[in-house]
Amino acid sequence: MRDAVRRATLAELGEHGYAGLTVENVAERSGVHKTTVYRRWGNVTGLISDALDLAADEPWPIPDTGSIEGDLRGIVQLVRSGFDDPGLGPVSSAFVAAAMQSPDAARALHAFFAARHEQSAEVVRRAVTRGELPGHVDVHEVIRVAVAPVYYRLFVAHEPVSEQDAARAADAALAAARAGVL
Amino acid sequence: MRDAVRRATLAELGEHGYAGLTVENVAERSGVHKTTVYRRWGNVTGLISDALDLAADEPWPIPDTGSIEGDLRGIVQLVRSGFDDPGLGPVSSAFVAAAMQSPDAARALHAFFAARHEQSAEVVRRAVTRGELPGHVDVHEVIRVAVAPVYYRLFVAHEPVSEQDAARAADAALAAARAGVL
Repeated sequence: MRDAVRRATLAELGEHGYAGLTVENVAERSGVHKTTVYRRWGNVTGLISDALDLAADEPWPIPDTGSIEGDLRGIVQLVRSGFDDPGLGPVSSAFVAAAMQSPDAARALHAFFAARHEQSAEVVRRAVTRGELPGHVDVHEVIRVAVAPVYYRLFVAHEPVSEQDAARAADAALAAARAGVL
Repeated sequence: MRDAVRRATLAELGEHGYAGLTVENVAERSGVHKTTVYRRWGNVTGLISDALDLAADEPWPIPDTGSIEGDLRGIVQLVRSGFDDPGLGPVSSAFVAAAMQSPDAARALHAFFAARHEQSAEVVRRAVTRGELPGHVDVHEVIRVAVAPVYYRLFVAHEPVSEQDAARAADAALAAARAGVL
């Protein structure tokens, strides 16, 4: 049942965004009775938080190209192409929008990104082991600085993000890490 | 009249956020008749776009510390402290939230950030003139990469932003620019 409700939540978010998400529609789409959804998930924010909790546990296809440059570029391209994906993009954007309007959704999104940072940091740790980066590097901060320009263009400055923009963001984080700033 | 409506829009955004902004409340607060506000601004999005248009024209206190390191850190601290300000922070956050829900607000915010990038790029141009940075540097991209981690923490990962985080973001952009990546 949890999986059906979660899939319905993601589908409704993709089609109608956060502003159009209702417990009624999720209940109807999932085939779970409305009173059950209300009792177990409470409200729209509960549905979003649960969908995010499960998403955070999913493995993320961290690249392993043999070099930190390739791995970091791969991660930033994953972020960029995710938002470009007609199925996934609207859902991901709806999560970001929901977190701006609901403290509960913000907490769930914070936990989601903490998990993503930790998973992604593995490529930085491997680079330290290979001697590509100094041992004192803040592995999570390298990931933040690498992906931040993509999110900034998409959700703040509302600018397009090309593959070249994404590669440059990854390269900038790498240059800063090599310089000992991160 | 335009200024009264704009001030009322900013005050209402600060108190109630984008979700709580109504033409009625702005009309009442500004002392301008409701039908006039509807005729000239259309709706809530028109009010937000107009407030942003005027904000984009305002001079921004670009630092001039004599070094690109000081100037870039100053700009990122301005961004950080702006969101930390109890008066200004909620208004700025409301603009970001509004742009995620309305294409008109997104266009207005895009124009606002284009103006800010252009104003801020002056510190990078001065650094090129002083010989601190290579001449081929993308002056706008240095600004984007410097401020992006602050926005990413605030609006995406929902993490706190310390003064040290802000300084490190500026230093990372500078290291990338020096390395010839930006």
